[in-house]
Amino acid sequence: MKKTRELRKWKILQEKDISPSPWFPLYLHKVEMPNGKIIDDYYLSKHDNVAMIAPITRDGKIVLVRQYKHGVEEVILELPAGRIEKNLSPLEAAFKELKEETGVVADNLIFLGEILTSPTKDSTRVYCYLALDVEITGEQDLDETEEINVEVYPLSDLKSLISSGEFKGSEALATLLKAKIYLESRNLDVQISI
Amino acid sequence: MKKTRELRKWKILQEKDISPSPWFPLYLHKVEMPNGKIIDDYYLSKHDNVAMIAPITRDGKIVLVRQYKHGVEEVILELPAGRIEKNLSPLEAAFKELKEETGVVADNLIFLGEILTSPTKDSTRVYCYLALDVEITGEQDLDETEEINVEVYPLSDLKSLISSGEFKGSEALATLLKAKIYLESRNLDVQISI
Repeated sequence: MKKTRELRKWKILQEKDISPSPWFPLYLHKVEMPNGKIIDDYYLSKHDNVAMIAPITRDGKIVLVRQYKHGVEEVILELPAGRIEKNLSPLEAAFKELKEETGVVADNLIFLGEILTSPTKDSTRVYCYLALDVEITGEQDLDETEEINVEVYPLSDLKSLISSGEFKGSEALATLLKAKIYLESRNLDVQISI
Repeated sequence: MKKTRELRKWKILQEKDISPSPWFPLYLHKVEMPNGKIIDDYYLSKHDNVAMIAPITRDGKIVLVRQYKHGVEEVILELPAGRIEKNLSPLEAAFKELKEETGVVADNLIFLGEILTSPTKDSTRVYCYLALDVEITGEQDLDETEEINVEVYPLSDLKSLISSGEFKGSEALATLLKAKIYLESRNLDVQISI
């Protein structure tokens, strides 16, 4: 294509913390674009990063979670995931969230890479993991603001869950896609056919 | 699985608009959970919904956009997309964004369904479209805060762009996955092998 520009980062001239609460970290930036234009009021949130896990059992089933999400006011189906607390590494957070949300124990987590969720207005990065041969203990450890149902599906159900729109979280779909590509490239026994 | 609960919506007891600017619509909710617990301070943003398009040319190439995203302070590769202005339908917005961002003209857009992007703390829904046999005119129509490079790749490059981490926007990956499943189910000549 013609007309490609050299794309560069914006320069942050000023940053002001205008968070209304620790629960919603919000910043106001004054920035300079590479073309010299100044934007006085660019707002962005800086929520903690997320660890997300695609947990697959020895017999080829995937562990999903169903829970209410107040942003969209809907009960939705997702992969297990959680915000990464400041004192934890992404890997530590992934093990912890998986165990607490689902009661699933994994020996090993395979890092699939990082994805972005709302990169225009939020800093969040999602660290994606694949867990194979997981064991379902049935013992969740939820706090009182969490109500999470654990649901186990054959991997062969995923395609219809996605095309019907029942499974529609973009981070979860992106993580599954990365898991699919990983498993294919390793030619492992378990495969995700989506 | 045992211990499944009936998952219900939270009840909004109070809503307060605390947006610092029209560019960042932010709300404070007092809510009641189904278990009776009251949360006094739940913060959520209500950004406009998004239309996102996977545009494929007659000769089996995909049109991507590369641009700087200030939330993550990185230049990233994405599918064409844009916020849906209040006076437009998702379909109208999809045609408009595709033309303006990329100079790509589509006769027809196939609706693939809706995905969610940050459902815990944001109301945004992303409407996903597939455009086949698109024509690249090379004529973008950008405003002065937009710098977008249009890049055209063979569909066969997508898998390595994803596994290398170069292509990592979760909405874009999820839209591609939905497009792949759609094309396979229709058994069309063009297929996305990811």
